[in-house]
Amino acid sequence: MNDPAFILHARVYYEDTDAGGVVYYANYLRFFERARTELLRQAGAGRALLQAQDELGFVVRRVEADYLAPARLDDALEIHASIERLGGASADFIQAVVCQGRVLCQARIAVVCVSFSSMKAQRMPQHLVTALQPYVRAYSHPSEKI
Amino acid sequence: MNDPAFILHARVYYEDTDAGGVVYYANYLRFFERARTELLRQAGAGRALLQAQDELGFVVRRVEADYLAPARLDDALEIHASIERLGGASADFIQAVVCQGRVLCQARIAVVCVSFSSMKAQRMPQHLVTALQPYVRAYSHPSEKI
Amino acid sequence: MNDPAFILHARVYYEDTDAGGVVYYANYLRFFERARTELLRQAGAGRALLQAQDELGFVVRRVEADYLAPARLDDALEIHASIERLGGASADFIQAVVCQGRVLCQARIAVVCVSFSSMKAQRMPQHLVTALQPYVRAYSHPSEKI
Amino acid sequence: MNDPAFILHARVYYEDTDAGGVVYYANYLRFFERARTELLRQAGAGRALLQAQDELGFVVRRVEADYLAPARLDDALEIHASIERLGGASADFIQAVVCQGRVLCQARIAVVCVSFSSMKAQRMPQHLVTALQPYVRAYSHPSEKI
Repeated sequence: MNDPAFILHARVYYEDTDAGGVVYYANYLRFFERARTELLRQAGAGRALLQAQDELGFVVRRVEADYLAPARLDDALEIHASIERLGGASADFIQAVVCQGRVLCQARIAVVCVSFSSMKAQRMPQHLVTALQPYVRAYSHPSEKI
Repeated sequence: MNDPAFILHARVYYEDTDAGGVVYYANYLRFFERARTELLRQAGAGRALLQAQDELGFVVRRVEADYLAPARLDDALEIHASIERLGGASADFIQAVVCQGRVLCQARIAVVCVSFSSMKAQRMPQHLVTALQPYVRAYSHPSEKI
Repeated sequence: MNDPAFILHARVYYEDTDAGGVVYYANYLRFFERARTELLRQAGAGRALLQAQDELGFVVRRVEADYLAPARLDDALEIHASIERLGGASADFIQAVVCQGRVLCQARIAVVCVSFSSMKAQRMPQHLVTALQPYVRAYSHPSEKI
Repeated sequence: MNDPAFILHARVYYEDTDAGGVVYYANYLRFFERARTELLRQAGAGRALLQAQDELGFVVRRVEADYLAPARLDDALEIHASIERLGGASADFIQAVVCQGRVLCQARIAVVCVSFSSMKAQRMPQHLVTALQPYVRAYSHPSEKI
């Protein structure tokens, strides 16, 4: 996988794990959202600002996630986030949970920009597109699927 | 503990457990809330109705919980809920998570009735007090603390 | 979507929702796992039995989920689960969260049978294949993607 | 409340909130555990070390939590942790979730040191007591209850 456009560091706590001794499969999606949120904040397009200025937000439309190896209690994780495709009203993120250089889980997550009043898809204003452009990466996909 | 006023059945799934192999301590509070919600629904004072009719809801003000023994994956739990004290704008619930007749976790949970517009404490209307009255139980507490 | 092989009923509680007023996107995966777990239990291949008899269990290898419409607080959901493909050491589930006849979220979830001692993929014993066979459904997929 | 012995910074994400628009009441307990875990790590008594050296760990025995004001999406929180009482096989933590100088939730959380093999209470070895001593604070409690 290429260098990611954004990296968030996160520790695995008991709350993230399950009785299998590993991170519960749904909780990788929580890690992924934290990283997307911080990427947007760094881009100057934080949730509060988007909502106040433009009445806009993002909702997830599709998730594809491959679970390659488990994360465990106390692991110091890197959560990667890059934009693979930036459309008029949508974006595809490529994300990964990485521990000590090894990809544990990778995902493509499609989000749609919506108006908060109608919850309908809405073209992103130009300032938002411009803010997100630096996070777009070309991907030579590590697997055929993602 | 006396016979509870309300019992909800719940199964322990992976999502509820942690790497210690047992239910994560915060998740008992999720079980407790499910039972309070279903008690209110049975009383004809479900969330939707309360909010629509009276713009009212309940928020938790204080939790006291004793963890006596762990619940484990696949356990078939009973979640008990009774009202210990019914005040003008508040109520104290006594709750327990029970497995095969054994109390695993017991709690006293104080909730306050609030107006949803102001989020301030609000006297319960008489129809709500009347609906909750049958769920009040006198408790001879199993421990000094609860 | 065809008639599902298994349906679990679940209510949406506060714990499932987020500040957007809808079920948090990761939590649909919790609903899906509850239904897979109960399907296995109904098939006589519950987790405890599998682990005790054969030292086997299932881990999720890949998730594809489409979010079509949001589930909301108090919704009475049906969680559907069918097996689309039953391999030697793996299975693909087709799952959906349905509310009042409307599909809110649908997913294909690939699981792998593993030995609990080694956590490596392991052929399913014949009694397990036989137990799961009645849950296999042919799918004419509602969308191209799933 | 006195100066806390340990402060962890945490951001509120969608995963932490509920449809009431605020942090779900059970999730404060997740924040509290993160801070206790990091306090132990800083003290040189991290979970991995404790388990490897001494086969010891901590389990929660009792929680008392007061919910004073809600935390909201995007809030930058301080999670405070101090030890109020350090016993032979147990400790009482005083914890708080603080936002912009305001206490939103405060708790007393009693933990017990257990042997991981037997899950029974076990006296803390002297090196652990010594490591935790610097985190003990005398409290003049902000409320009568905690």
